Amino acid sequence: MAELSVTATRPGAANEADNPRQSLVARFGPEQPLQLDCGIALAPFQIAYKTYGTLNAARTNTVLVCHALTGDQHVASAHPVTGKQGWWETMVGPGKPIDTDRYFVLCTNVVGGCMGSTGPASINPKTGKPWGLDFPVITIRDMVRSQAMLLDHLGIETLFAVAGGSMGGMQVLQWAASYPDRVFAALPIAAATRHSAQNIAFHEVGRQAIMADPEWRGGRYLIEETNPRRGLAVARMGAHITYLSDAALHRKFGRKFQDRSNPTFSFDADFEVESYLRHQGISFVERFDANSYLYLTRAMDYFDLAADYSTLAAAFKNTQTRFCVISFNSDWLFPTSESRAIVHALNASSARVSFAEIVTDKGHDAFLLDEPELFAIVRGFLGSAATARGLVASGRR
Amino acid sequence: MAELSVTATRPGAANEADNPRQSLVARFGPEQPLQLDCGIALAPFQIAYKTYGTLNAARTNTVLVCHALTGDQHVASAHPVTGKQGWWETMVGPGKPIDTDRYFVLCTNVVGGCMGSTGPASINPKTGKPWGLDFPVITIRDMVRSQAMLLDHLGIETLFAVAGGSMGGMQVLQWAASYPDRVFAALPIAAATRHSAQNIAFHEVGRQAIMADPEWRGGRYLIEETNPRRGLAVARMGAHITYLSDAALHRKFGRKFQDRSNPTFSFDADFEVESYLRHQGISFVERFDANSYLYLTRAMDYFDLAADYSTLAAAFKNTQTRFCVISFNSDWLFPTSESRAIVHALNASSARVSFAEIVTDKGHDAFLLDEPELFAIVRGFLGSAATARGLVASGRR
Repeated sequence: MAELSVTATRPGAANEADNPRQSLVARFGPEQPLQLDCGIALAPFQIAYKTYGTLNAARTNTVLVCHALTGDQHVASAHPVTGKQGWWETMVGPGKPIDTDRYFVLCTNVVGGCMGSTGPASINPKTGKPWGLDFPVITIRDMVRSQAMLLDHLGIETLFAVAGGSMGGMQVLQWAASYPDRVFAALPIAAATRHSAQNIAFHEVGRQAIMADPEWRGGRYLIEETNPRRGLAVARMGAHITYLSDAALHRKFGRKFQDRSNPTFSFDADFEVESYLRHQGISFVERFDANSYLYLTRAMDYFDLAADYSTLAAAFKNTQTRFCVISFNSDWLFPTSESRAIVHALNASSARVSFAEIVTDKGHDAFLLDEPELFAIVRGFLGSAATARGLVASGRR
Repeated sequence: MAELSVTATRPGAANEADNPRQSLVARFGPEQPLQLDCGIALAPFQIAYKTYGTLNAARTNTVLVCHALTGDQHVASAHPVTGKQGWWETMVGPGKPIDTDRYFVLCTNVVGGCMGSTGPASINPKTGKPWGLDFPVITIRDMVRSQAMLLDHLGIETLFAVAGGSMGGMQVLQWAASYPDRVFAALPIAAATRHSAQNIAFHEVGRQAIMADPEWRGGRYLIEETNPRRGLAVARMGAHITYLSDAALHRKFGRKFQDRSNPTFSFDADFEVESYLRHQGISFVERFDANSYLYLTRAMDYFDLAADYSTLAAAFKNTQTRFCVISFNSDWLFPTSESRAIVHALNASSARVSFAEIVTDKGHDAFLLDEPELFAIVRGFLGSAATARGLVASGRR
């Protein structure tokens, strides 16, 4: 058929916003507001998180994993809505590069998200109804600030490492800038210190696709019991193209027809790439909140470390953190030039930094995929930092 | 504001589909059907066109200009709906590279378009109502076939040259393949012999944005007096990003805020690039038909010369046409590698071919912009071909 069929949804998805299954939840009362960059003090609020591995006695082996735009805290265990495996199971687990036999891995759902941390789909305590667009606009720094509050809450003074790709990499950079004394090692992957005009442009198209859906209802769809599924699916389809390289799309799909050898001369999904994209859009709406998508894309757009600190080097002044910056040569959304800018700023701050551009045709999404060189670099960097930090391997080493 | 405001439209736009103002119209009756690649014989049908300059007595000085996806026949004169100047006035006119003092310039609205050639917004003679999705799917070859019928109708046996960018360039290549004896010189600019998986993917997102708009009504919006303006605007916004390079967006907009120095912490068009894109989307819907957008993107997706002729070289076997292939180094939608593939196929056919990759940061849209090197190459190529063809300059030479 020609149009997207997006009627089927998993009824449990909406409940995750306030009462996440299979997650831990830290609740912060009115006396502990989250001071947001926009000037608002958000209270009460909650942070949903997952942990893997064991915190050592010295509380020095925590690796904070930061998720990307549509990720969540379910890094290395099944997703409670889709049942699919964790989004970074190739990277995080026993014996994996981020080795849960050695490290205590912590991942929070970002504030503004929809998987249990307070966000636009959460209940606004003042009205008893979902926040919708009354939720304040949040920033990458707000996400990091809330993570720091969670660490305080858990009694974890310092992070052994903070790691993440894409929006997760932005959080890594913000962590190193905001809390240099709390971060021993930092691993920003496929990241940038600011969103480019093209990045902002793609996000804006996605937002307009959502807001153009009449079921969006000015963001009040949860109250009005509608759901801008089609708009969100279109947004996801467009974004998904930017996560892949032209070469990867060509290798995977080329111009292959779907289940046939000739065109149908119609608007059906004739080409495999069309069918694939439609699937991406349709499956995404089962697990994600449209307003969260608006808020999190906005947070990325606003991210600009150099503007916050006058220069990029100033953001990392006197840092003692060890950095490992990783990019992928076929990533055109967060190209290597952006990672080089990070490295140059770190060099200007005399920081300890190593840098790798990994050759792959998988594009931006490579950080989520089976990429042996990435695994080797992460394993090596963390292993050497762990030695420097005096961490010994627990378990199966 | 956060959402697109797309309520204002120019009431005259819809009439252009059947009764185009400021255009010539060739009508083909039931006895002269257009044999479409999908197997249908389209009849009756009409082709709207514009001419500039004077046909010489030998009828040998015609330059057929082929328009791109959202272009039309108004190459070098004001657009009847928007009042804006012609889309290629920098290239076509007296003394311009495609010199109307010397050449007789002809441009047709493509079949499937919405500016006077038969398309989905035209009246279906069987029902007396607009075709909508009952209109047959058309191909690039169908467009070219209809242009050849127009030439027959006008008594023009051969073209001195055929020129166009993007989808226009696809028509140029199809002309050279389908009617080698009728084309003396061919100028495909920023083109390709097939649409890539990434190209198809971007088009599919645009189509889904249109079809997700409830006002699209399964394509029956003209009958039901609705208009999928928002969906079409979103489609245009997304496509527009692909027409520009990352560097051009950065140079024009960077991360500049719109009318202010700080973020508003809202979903307003904070960044200039957002405001620019919204304008592109909103202004587009005033002049374009949503179903035409579906049909013309589909025609581009289906284009694959190598598949039609078993090999690309076979498409140009024994050609006597002189080719000038032009690409832009920052064009990531139709990258230089695609133009090189054209050149290699022409070399394999022992064709006369020159090739230029123009260095510019303007991206795919460079073929429409003020690009002096492009103008110089087109002027030189046509001038030398005109001498070979025995054309003398008329008028101001």
